[in-house]
Amino acid sequence: MTDKTTIVLENIQSRKSVRNFTGEPVTKACLLALLKAGMAAPSARNRQPLAFVAVTERNILHALGEGLPFTKMLFKAGACIVVCGDSSIDLQAGATDLWYQDAAAATENILLAAEAMRLGAVWSALYPMAERENHVRKLVKLPSEVKPFSIIPIGHPTGQDQPKDKFKAEKIHWERW
Amino acid sequence: MTDKTTIVLENIQSRKSVRNFTGEPVTKACLLALLKAGMAAPSARNRQPLAFVAVTERNILHALGEGLPFTKMLFKAGACIVVCGDSSIDLQAGATDLWYQDAAAATENILLAAEAMRLGAVWSALYPMAERENHVRKLVKLPSEVKPFSIIPIGHPTGQDQPKDKFKAEKIHWERW
Repeated sequence: MTDKTTIVLENIQSRKSVRNFTGEPVTKACLLALLKAGMAAPSARNRQPLAFVAVTERNILHALGEGLPFTKMLFKAGACIVVCGDSSIDLQAGATDLWYQDAAAATENILLAAEAMRLGAVWSALYPMAERENHVRKLVKLPSEVKPFSIIPIGHPTGQDQPKDKFKAEKIHWERW
Repeated sequence: MTDKTTIVLENIQSRKSVRNFTGEPVTKACLLALLKAGMAAPSARNRQPLAFVAVTERNILHALGEGLPFTKMLFKAGACIVVCGDSSIDLQAGATDLWYQDAAAATENILLAAEAMRLGAVWSALYPMAERENHVRKLVKLPSEVKPFSIIPIGHPTGQDQPKDKFKAEKIHWERW
């Protein structure tokens, strides 16, 4: 294995859900790097139906956290990214709408990029939970054709959160189940 | 940015849908490294509902490709991985089932790991398309409680496939839409 291989595979293994932040800000340059990683995710039939809201204002981060029972870490995050699907972007005739699969891939890319940048981040699901979706929709003023998929609090990690080893050989079936 | 940061971000940008393979085999050691990357993906509430079928037998790869209109690259792939959700794994009371979001994150991890290992791979959607799901279910003998999500043909790339630049600044909304 080359160094590149090792570094990428180790980054995948060291990614963790970071829920404890120091409270330091996250720069727009960092957020832009994360958003570039998100947009590089694969998209079914190359439709590219995603859009992103990046939030750094303290009062919005706080208000978002207040209405989301599992996302209180927004209070100490330096920023967050809301990954959205824009239904106004054309879907090919006869194609099944897979926007949420694209959105999940983009979310994962952002988490892996954050890990590589020594930032902490955590995937908090919004879709398909209408109450959570509506709370976020109101605060970041999403138009009706745009659906929020996930919210990713981002900050500088305190070091408390560690990766889990989730490898289980029995989950692998060779050739057939 | 450190070397690590640069290497991981570049790997995210260089990942591409590889549809042209040399026909060379893919070793079980390589598949195992890819599966480890898949299992390291985040899982909603840490449920870990995924399972994987890794196929290298030529006759199964061929039969899978025959029934999947958009996955004919299986004919020249060295292997494939079917990412599945196992509904027999307990879901917490009151939780929404997000198995397909976990499966999408695992699929993306496998694609990024393949890129880092200089292998080629492509995400081919099965869920939620019943005809494709049933074709794969029969051939790899999935039990009824297991649902196939994606099939990832894997092989040695011919070099014909290149990454797309999908960055669009207008998809980013700062602070609010």
